[in-house]
Amino acid sequence: MSGAAPLAEFKVGVDNVIFSVDPEQQRLFVLLIKRLHPPCQHQWSPPGTLVRHGESLEAAARRILQEKIKVHNLYLEQLYTFGAPGSDRASAPHRYLSVSYFALVRREAAELITREGGMTAWFSVPSLPTLAFDHHNILNYGLRRLRNKLEYSPIAFEVLPDVFTLNEVYQLYCTVLGENFADYSNFRARLLKLGILQDTGVKASRGAGRPASLYRFDAIAFEPLRHKPLVFV
Amino acid sequence: MSGAAPLAEFKVGVDNVIFSVDPEQQRLFVLLIKRLHPPCQHQWSPPGTLVRHGESLEAAARRILQEKIKVHNLYLEQLYTFGAPGSDRASAPHRYLSVSYFALVRREAAELITREGGMTAWFSVPSLPTLAFDHHNILNYGLRRLRNKLEYSPIAFEVLPDVFTLNEVYQLYCTVLGENFADYSNFRARLLKLGILQDTGVKASRGAGRPASLYRFDAIAFEPLRHKPLVFV
Repeated sequence: MSGAAPLAEFKVGVDNVIFSVDPEQQRLFVLLIKRLHPPCQHQWSPPGTLVRHGESLEAAARRILQEKIKVHNLYLEQLYTFGAPGSDRASAPHRYLSVSYFALVRREAAELITREGGMTAWFSVPSLPTLAFDHHNILNYGLRRLRNKLEYSPIAFEVLPDVFTLNEVYQLYCTVLGENFADYSNFRARLLKLGILQDTGVKASRGAGRPASLYRFDAIAFEPLRHKPLVFV
Repeated sequence: MSGAAPLAEFKVGVDNVIFSVDPEQQRLFVLLIKRLHPPCQHQWSPPGTLVRHGESLEAAARRILQEKIKVHNLYLEQLYTFGAPGSDRASAPHRYLSVSYFALVRREAAELITREGGMTAWFSVPSLPTLAFDHHNILNYGLRRLRNKLEYSPIAFEVLPDVFTLNEVYQLYCTVLGENFADYSNFRARLLKLGILQDTGVKASRGAGRPASLYRFDAIAFEPLRHKPLVFV
């Protein structure tokens, strides 16, 4: 099929864009590791590795993550594949292709692992260090996916506490989408109209404000809506 | 980073899932080619090829498509990357990894090319032949993306004629999403409420029904909505 033209030979890597949110501080974090070895030694990058013989792409992604972070029931979603000829990380004659994966995790449920003189850290998204290779592209792509998922899926409720106030949901959305994505009363009204939040009947006093109702995500009410197109903002 | 474990060596292929819709016949089509050479000789598959030295993934996707179909301004979108160890199309010791691309084209604006004894054809989606390799996975993934895009983006208006009746939009949605996705009057009301359709003031008589208003997609009205989350159904 390819005639006489030489085919490219690839090493394939996986790169994980793992986000967490601290709604109280209104900060969005991404997981980065400091590279121990060349190329780009001592620079920061999302945890990545090269795919081994007999190993699936996702298995490789999970292998490297397990060395950097302890987190239960991690749902990794494929993000994008970058494979331009210029962005080589493998040594010639091989080209490098990166398949990126994405997840949003509960920060307090994720324990960072650092060993062998390495460093693993959560970086606040607006103040990232210079990243190795073209990894800012991967991160930007991940950020777009995260925003998209907040808009169209109930991913926020996977990282909020089991019970939460509507203002806490709003703070999380503001943290990721920016302050101006919607005003609170509109957001509140639209969210409640979806019928997927259950009022626990309990009110919580947090800070100086009036006690606010605590809600719970209603997985049973959401089930029939799972495959319907919804907007959450 | 990988220690002593052997790294997998890959050939990388691209596979194109190209859909077209005939709303009048209520049929959804996908572009398939008959494979001229082993492996899987004489079986049908989406047009794909292996990536050459110095060639980007998308350039490879476009190269093979240009041999099979003539279409202007083709917007290819990356779909998914399949790279499980079992699905090898490359000869050992290489593994095969497939990056798939997706597009929806206007069928009457796409001219099929068949040469060198090959075959290129539009197949109606519910009556597909057996596909080579694991290509039904790629097609199913493409179908999900197409449905998703109809629900959340104005992709339908890229393949409808310049002016159209609301019933023609509905027929296109029915063809892809199934008859029961919504009833016509709800669909019509929701679509008009988005404010992205312009009534041309002209009415068309098609078939036996009452003359229906002809609409045009209003790109200027849509522009400020481009980055807002919308649902089209």
